[in-house]
Amino acid sequence: MREVGIGLAGFGTVGAGVYLNLEKNRELLRERIGCDLVLRKIAERDTLRPRPVPLPLDRVVPDWRDLLDDPSLDVVIELMGGIEQPRQMILEAIQRGKMVVTANKALLAEHGAEIFGLAVEKRVPVFYEAAVAGGIPIIKSVREAFVGNHFLRVRGIVNGTSNYILTRMAESGMDFASALREAQEAGYAEANPALDVNGWDAGHKAIILASLAYGFWVPSQDVLVEGIEKVTPADSRFAAQLGYTIKLLACIDACADGSVEVSVQPSFVPNGNILASVNGVFNAIAVRGDVVGDTLFYGRGAGQDPTASSVIGDLADAANALLSPRSFYGFVPHGLYGKLRPASEMVSPFYLRLGVEDRPGVLARIAGVLGEEGIGNSSVIQPESQEGEEASLNLMVHDATRGQMLSALEKIRSLDCVRGEPAFYRVEASA
Amino acid sequence: MREVGIGLAGFGTVGAGVYLNLEKNRELLRERIGCDLVLRKIAERDTLRPRPVPLPLDRVVPDWRDLLDDPSLDVVIELMGGIEQPRQMILEAIQRGKMVVTANKALLAEHGAEIFGLAVEKRVPVFYEAAVAGGIPIIKSVREAFVGNHFLRVRGIVNGTSNYILTRMAESGMDFASALREAQEAGYAEANPALDVNGWDAGHKAIILASLAYGFWVPSQDVLVEGIEKVTPADSRFAAQLGYTIKLLACIDACADGSVEVSVQPSFVPNGNILASVNGVFNAIAVRGDVVGDTLFYGRGAGQDPTASSVIGDLADAANALLSPRSFYGFVPHGLYGKLRPASEMVSPFYLRLGVEDRPGVLARIAGVLGEEGIGNSSVIQPESQEGEEASLNLMVHDATRGQMLSALEKIRSLDCVRGEPAFYRVEASA
Repeated sequence: MREVGIGLAGFGTVGAGVYLNLEKNRELLRERIGCDLVLRKIAERDTLRPRPVPLPLDRVVPDWRDLLDDPSLDVVIELMGGIEQPRQMILEAIQRGKMVVTANKALLAEHGAEIFGLAVEKRVPVFYEAAVAGGIPIIKSVREAFVGNHFLRVRGIVNGTSNYILTRMAESGMDFASALREAQEAGYAEANPALDVNGWDAGHKAIILASLAYGFWVPSQDVLVEGIEKVTPADSRFAAQLGYTIKLLACIDACADGSVEVSVQPSFVPNGNILASVNGVFNAIAVRGDVVGDTLFYGRGAGQDPTASSVIGDLADAANALLSPRSFYGFVPHGLYGKLRPASEMVSPFYLRLGVEDRPGVLARIAGVLGEEGIGNSSVIQPESQEGEEASLNLMVHDATRGQMLSALEKIRSLDCVRGEPAFYRVEASA
Repeated sequence: MREVGIGLAGFGTVGAGVYLNLEKNRELLRERIGCDLVLRKIAERDTLRPRPVPLPLDRVVPDWRDLLDDPSLDVVIELMGGIEQPRQMILEAIQRGKMVVTANKALLAEHGAEIFGLAVEKRVPVFYEAAVAGGIPIIKSVREAFVGNHFLRVRGIVNGTSNYILTRMAESGMDFASALREAQEAGYAEANPALDVNGWDAGHKAIILASLAYGFWVPSQDVLVEGIEKVTPADSRFAAQLGYTIKLLACIDACADGSVEVSVQPSFVPNGNILASVNGVFNAIAVRGDVVGDTLFYGRGAGQDPTASSVIGDLADAANALLSPRSFYGFVPHGLYGKLRPASEMVSPFYLRLGVEDRPGVLARIAGVLGEEGIGNSSVIQPESQEGEEASLNLMVHDATRGQMLSALEKIRSLDCVRGEPAFYRVEASA
């Protein structure tokens, strides 16, 4: 039976998962794929550190360059983490004609154009199912199964840590800091959770999905990315009262003028929308195509085994490409639609929470400011809820641009009847 | 640009959808796939009947054999319906080296072994994404993305007509006949809805999924298939009271002894399970793999466009296989695990509804019979609900085999305190 030689760079959680599951299900894979996936070498510098999964020392080499120098390796898996070393490794692997599998979302989001540009030039496939939503086959589905679709929109809950925190806040009324601590204790958040809770992990995934759906790479500095740090128990409670659940949503929309909106924002999701039912560390991605209509993919977005499942799926595709070279490596860099819509022009309903002085006339002044900005339509108004001396005023604003909202908020902030920093969230439409 | 010649047999709803969407998104497909999918011929006998989508008469040929005789066609799409003509056409296409795309679930469920046996022998791929769950890419996901997984279980809502009817019954309290009529008026059920409501449409899909996951073809006569015709408004109401929703579930389970359970049954699904939230004509399939864990796929399971989306995805795979012959045509017929577990040995909780005489001691007699059959554990008991002169007794029975239940029911039926035909449903476990 033909062997496919594999080199692995990085033996962290996911690397160990790939190693373990390739061993465990090797026989099954041989029967299904018709060739033998052989993990020959593992590049890992630190051989002394105690690990939950012991390093198979007979296969360890100190440097990823050793993988590229080994002619018996057909495919290399990049799971090192970081940006610059992985970038060098992947570019050099492509140059040398070795296929690449990676889970590095930050790298692809920042350097996707360079990496896939070279991959297309050299006709060497790069697989990255594990970079978005762990075990969920969203990359393959968008790239292959939905190849006949224009993508109208994508909504993703693609950061399990944030979703766990928001779920716990909604369930128990606890605040962000307590829910984060609980997530860390449960092993669902890292000691440094910045990229998870500030939205950028989801942002990287949104950029990759948008590139795949629309054929161009969005510059990350142009993407609106907000995290969940400022969501309060009151927001969560009001959302529930109004029939919504707060989720950190990656939103990708094709606009009528051919541009594309990409953002990550905490959003009010109507409870009738299946995304509102996605709880805990699970991920889900809703894709709307012009032919297929509405679809949704759900599963574990992180973790040793789910991510390894996607890496192994990619290895099987790589083996297949190796045994019978494929011409169709996905449709990332075609430059079909090259325009990102500015965040300020994005339209949605908004939820607005203000701390205000508890006296007559306040609502009229707020409504006046909204009206000046052309936001005439703030129809749903919550009764004020007393919290100490300050009142909380909660408004649901019908469709407005983000620019209108920001400009109204600047004026509202300067009103003498307003206390503290206003909070606002986009509201996901019902249909 | 290289052209891929396509022949289409059958211009019904789905055939027309393939034609329309290939035209509409042809430019997009060229850019993504790098070749031109050209629908050259359409085999359709009836050219006179008025149709919602007019037949492009310049491409029409009277017989599917004309497609096979045309050397300019690389791929044939079988959308004729029926069994025997499609079977002949597909076998002959494979013999002649033409790749096949089909949506014919009944054909594959009944003759899959023959068709894929020949396909493997001749190394001609047969694609069938559209045969299961319309636009949802479940075949590709199970076959390719999850190739590294042993499949532990599959749960599918794979018949939109049944799901629409059950959804309407749960929402409105209407009975089966009324909900079916409503589905027919809304265009969600055919004039002859037998295969949809008797469970066999779902049964065919379950057989195909099981074959893909476990590598052998289950004989259809050995599969337990039950429809929704006997579900009453009372069942639906009691389910809701207990925190469940009734769904027609296709269930595939890998058993510890290496055998596989396959069935289609109306089931009580706990409302915390995301499958309980799948409403109307939508389909969803939950797949549990030993590596990826729990996943779920959701979308439209039928209809012109969603089904066409899957056919076009298959055409792109076929084009790819044509341009660079692939060695990996999926893992259907490997005969890895060849054993179906008898339905009588399937274990689950059960819900049991009995019409009984309203007098003391009835419950004790029923419980006695259950005890005799080794079903000791009927813990949840609903208070009796008066309906005319007869009382309704509702029990929730903990894990039992279907065989135990049938045997207990036979005895219960013959008790003089029992009225009418008892109803029972499997109950889906919470986790």
